[in-house]
Amino acid sequence: MLATMMYGAGDVRVEERPEPTILKPTDAIIRLSASCICGSDLWPYRGSNPITEPLAMGHEYCGIVVDVGSDVKSVKPGQFVVGSFCISDNTCPHCQCGFQSSCEQREFMTGAQAPLARVPLADGTLVATDEVPPDDLIPSLLAVSDVLGTGWYAADAARVKPGSTALVVGDGAVGLMGVLAAKQMGATRIIAMSRHKTRQELALEFGATDIIAERGSEGIAQLRKMTRNVGADAVLECVGTRESMMQALECARPGSMIGYVGVPHGVELDGQQLFFAQKGMLGGPAPVRRFLPHLMDLVLTRKIQPGRVFDLELPLADVARGYRAMDQREAIKVLLRT
Amino acid sequence: MLATMMYGAGDVRVEERPEPTILKPTDAIIRLSASCICGSDLWPYRGSNPITEPLAMGHEYCGIVVDVGSDVKSVKPGQFVVGSFCISDNTCPHCQCGFQSSCEQREFMTGAQAPLARVPLADGTLVATDEVPPDDLIPSLLAVSDVLGTGWYAADAARVKPGSTALVVGDGAVGLMGVLAAKQMGATRIIAMSRHKTRQELALEFGATDIIAERGSEGIAQLRKMTRNVGADAVLECVGTRESMMQALECARPGSMIGYVGVPHGVELDGQQLFFAQKGMLGGPAPVRRFLPHLMDLVLTRKIQPGRVFDLELPLADVARGYRAMDQREAIKVLLRT
Repeated sequence: MLATMMYGAGDVRVEERPEPTILKPTDAIIRLSASCICGSDLWPYRGSNPITEPLAMGHEYCGIVVDVGSDVKSVKPGQFVVGSFCISDNTCPHCQCGFQSSCEQREFMTGAQAPLARVPLADGTLVATDEVPPDDLIPSLLAVSDVLGTGWYAADAARVKPGSTALVVGDGAVGLMGVLAAKQMGATRIIAMSRHKTRQELALEFGATDIIAERGSEGIAQLRKMTRNVGADAVLECVGTRESMMQALECARPGSMIGYVGVPHGVELDGQQLFFAQKGMLGGPAPVRRFLPHLMDLVLTRKIQPGRVFDLELPLADVARGYRAMDQREAIKVLLRT
Repeated sequence: MLATMMYGAGDVRVEERPEPTILKPTDAIIRLSASCICGSDLWPYRGSNPITEPLAMGHEYCGIVVDVGSDVKSVKPGQFVVGSFCISDNTCPHCQCGFQSSCEQREFMTGAQAPLARVPLADGTLVATDEVPPDDLIPSLLAVSDVLGTGWYAADAARVKPGSTALVVGDGAVGLMGVLAAKQMGATRIIAMSRHKTRQELALEFGATDIIAERGSEGIAQLRKMTRNVGADAVLECVGTRESMMQALECARPGSMIGYVGVPHGVELDGQQLFFAQKGMLGGPAPVRRFLPHLMDLVLTRKIQPGRVFDLELPLADVARGYRAMDQREAIKVLLRT
């Protein structure tokens, strides 16, 4: 089959690879209904993470089960499934506590920018639908796997409450999903920081009530003005740079939580500053498995359309073009038809 | 009057100072029923905070109101009051949100290691009792002002829940109060890290179910063993050093919160490490004002005895000896009779 490999910064190739097979009795093999490129794939693409050997890219997925190992009980061939980018057994104490992304057996999904993929710990990772969903819902169901689940976790970790003011730092796909999540959780004021017209429009569509186009200290001043110098009740940090984290910290009201889901790169926090600012923080890889049933239900009942975040659709063979488009911010998020 | 001044590291003196007077119409003057030395007073005493001018020491207080400014409405001369070490108006958005320690008009109390003290923003800071309480409750009511309120906030920020396992890092007075708080909040397993026999005994008296005497990696291993490698559901960090924070981070289960109340000194946090460890953090000066009514009620109805934390009582004239005793860890916390 043709699959996506990254050989180095800026070097993504589609090449012939062997089809995945069951390696452990807890595995499943799925045929992907669609795949996509994640903002986090850009870290190695941009050279921020070292690449020591070719990487099988892709960790967002949904599709039809084609084979399962002998221990798999909860899904069977023919079923449509969505899984988390974090592989989990869903039985260990961390999973039971709702933090499947810190599962004692945690693995990160790989190789999903391909027609077929192996999903380890299928019972703990995959959630099946009752029926095979209609084609038009595939992009939204795919989004649940990571980008929506991650935006949702940012809002959850930031403890967005009904009637509150939520600030979303970052207008990438995850940030836009954070807007959608804050809306679903009942925030009445949702402020999106975005400089890009198309992203601003999408943020408004997903439920943003205000846009801040300014960055840095001007952006902070704008937020302070909007909140009468109080700060936001909840802040979703969806980038992972030092600048975005500082933005989040400066904009959060004392006692509030910053849910941070952008993998921090170059972020150092001074304990004493954080103490006197009295800002709370919770981040990490999103425990998407916790949210899967609820989010899949919201999609299947057409209450949300997270798939709207895909603004470029390409055949898998053109995946390199997809990476370039996201790197250059010509596309928000690229859907790959396998 | 005789009052306590710190001139430099290790240099605490009792000297004649003018009695405080009403400076603003929102002030109150109180006659202290007792005062005490705080663990945080040891930071400058040990040279960790620079001293540029003589400091009027003391920020924990309770006593009888002797005078109030013309704007003060909620307390009057003759009443017994307890106040927070953080001065707050209790009306600004941060106060209304329960974070009086980040009040827009925040000040820190000073000059309470003396017979008389001025309390700014009296209406927002002080809580009066219905009657003057019996003498034997004074130590416990004094404890509410900071040390108990701070331990309570650590447990609150760490989100201690009924039935949970709480870990308390630090066996100073605040840590011991954290044990008491966790017990009140329904934690069924309370693990206190302490190497000192008298502190261990007090921790057990306040509700600890387990003691870990080991430090560093051995202490972490012990905690992991006790929790079947899961980690604690809630961690109260009550020291503020790099070592204690690392201890807290290593011992917290993923997804849990670390409530940190020791003023961090030399604590740097790596964003990416914190992300993948998935540990939450909320700290800062305790919003004691939020907890005052509840904690005073618990003391007045004799449900808790936080005053047990005072293990040395001295006349104010001997305050320098009190500092030495706490610095040398010969005393847990020193009560000063003014």
